[in-house]
Amino acid sequence: MKLLRFGPAGQEKPGMLDGDGQVRDLSAHVTDFAGASVSLEALEALRAIDPASLPLVAEPGRIGSCLASVPNFFCIGLNYAKHAAETGSEPPKEPILFSKASSALSGPYDPVVIPRNSVKSDWEVELGVVIGKTASYVSEAEALSHVAGYCVINDMSEREFQIEKGGQWIKGKSAPTFGPTGPWLVTADEVPDPQALKLSLDLNGETVQDSDTSDMIFGVAEIISYMSQFMMLQPGDIIATGTPSGVGMGMKPQRFLKPGDVMEVRVEGLGEQRQETVAAS
Amino acid sequence: MKLLRFGPAGQEKPGMLDGDGQVRDLSAHVTDFAGASVSLEALEALRAIDPASLPLVAEPGRIGSCLASVPNFFCIGLNYAKHAAETGSEPPKEPILFSKASSALSGPYDPVVIPRNSVKSDWEVELGVVIGKTASYVSEAEALSHVAGYCVINDMSEREFQIEKGGQWIKGKSAPTFGPTGPWLVTADEVPDPQALKLSLDLNGETVQDSDTSDMIFGVAEIISYMSQFMMLQPGDIIATGTPSGVGMGMKPQRFLKPGDVMEVRVEGLGEQRQETVAAS
Repeated sequence: MKLLRFGPAGQEKPGMLDGDGQVRDLSAHVTDFAGASVSLEALEALRAIDPASLPLVAEPGRIGSCLASVPNFFCIGLNYAKHAAETGSEPPKEPILFSKASSALSGPYDPVVIPRNSVKSDWEVELGVVIGKTASYVSEAEALSHVAGYCVINDMSEREFQIEKGGQWIKGKSAPTFGPTGPWLVTADEVPDPQALKLSLDLNGETVQDSDTSDMIFGVAEIISYMSQFMMLQPGDIIATGTPSGVGMGMKPQRFLKPGDVMEVRVEGLGEQRQETVAAS
Repeated sequence: MKLLRFGPAGQEKPGMLDGDGQVRDLSAHVTDFAGASVSLEALEALRAIDPASLPLVAEPGRIGSCLASVPNFFCIGLNYAKHAAETGSEPPKEPILFSKASSALSGPYDPVVIPRNSVKSDWEVELGVVIGKTASYVSEAEALSHVAGYCVINDMSEREFQIEKGGQWIKGKSAPTFGPTGPWLVTADEVPDPQALKLSLDLNGETVQDSDTSDMIFGVAEIISYMSQFMMLQPGDIIATGTPSGVGMGMKPQRFLKPGDVMEVRVEGLGEQRQETVAAS
């Protein structure tokens, strides 16, 4: 299933794509997508519904984030060797974990707001993993059975806030609109191998990131198993699994976002995002 | 008001303390305390209720975390000069920000579970701040008007996971039960000066942390104003504002928790916690 949320910001309804790629209204079956409503059990119940029986949404209008909110917006750092190198870092020996404020969650086509006083706003295409079942001390072998689905994420980053303001990256990862997520939550059954997906990002029509999830240092199963040793993952948690090379801070000279720039962000099979950047009001 | 949640884990009801310190049942007025239900408007509505009109709960039983869930569990690091020194760090020039997984939230008297493979589980008494109003780019002068209330937090930390496993502290801060919160959410009107509160922690009856929030490097207003430059704070977000000196990693020799240890954790006017540590199953 490809699940989505459509409608004005804050008033989104849940929906799914039918076989023809048209939006069907799921709001008679689920209030919204967040937390327990994307658990494996909840998704199994949705799977039993014939899309043709659902109201067709001829004009869905805006598409929101595929999740209304997240218990946690986790991120993995430096998870592609060439990206680690472009930032001047060694490839990590264990997954680097950090988080975004949950209020960074944003729609896939919503404008990205460059924060006040930002001079180093940067892009990061990533494979997003949405947890569907509580995970604590799970093995790599059983890890993927805890996944509800996958989605495109742009893990927007302000490098000065992230790196030059004193410890811990969350400071540069959390501005409002810094977490475009979607357009769809693609359920795990439609993604047979999360380590075989091309992902890319175009800036103003020029491809700046172009890689494959097979290049990850730590794969999705390893990440989930590893994280579950330190915390309990919950249905609806998102994990952004790291970005490949080609970010602005890695360019020579460095290049950062300015109002009016356009990012097109895609992961194979999961859809495409498009954001224009605007200045903070 | 002193707001709390009582009942078995996962089935808590919201309540408040009356003038005699007895628990009154608020479940006819609010479903639970989390997010929007601790907004300033929601609290104002509760304030209009005469506690004597609410059902008396003669035997409240277990007291849960004063919040059912949190959009974000933020923490400030090294915010007391003597604590920074005991960890071998310089006092920070700007607030150090990190987060705990929201699933770390735990009741004030619930056992603290030492994670599997932990050898350095440590304690941290902290003043917790609960946000009551969306905060984005707020000044220090207006920051405290965004606070719903305050609570006691034990910012439990596994030092090997936090420091020796490759970047970013969240890894050592997020185990289940690593965020005892409560017993009460004390609304801001009852805390005229959050920078004038004694706070202490006893380990097996011996006082190991003993300080005052006047010793913070960055006060609550400065923390909120600072954070709001980088992210949008939301009603129900928690900020644990840092711990004073006296943690186990600062002792010579270092001392860490083992099953059967008892922590008593208090902040003046906000109540007292008590946790016994147990091994992970």
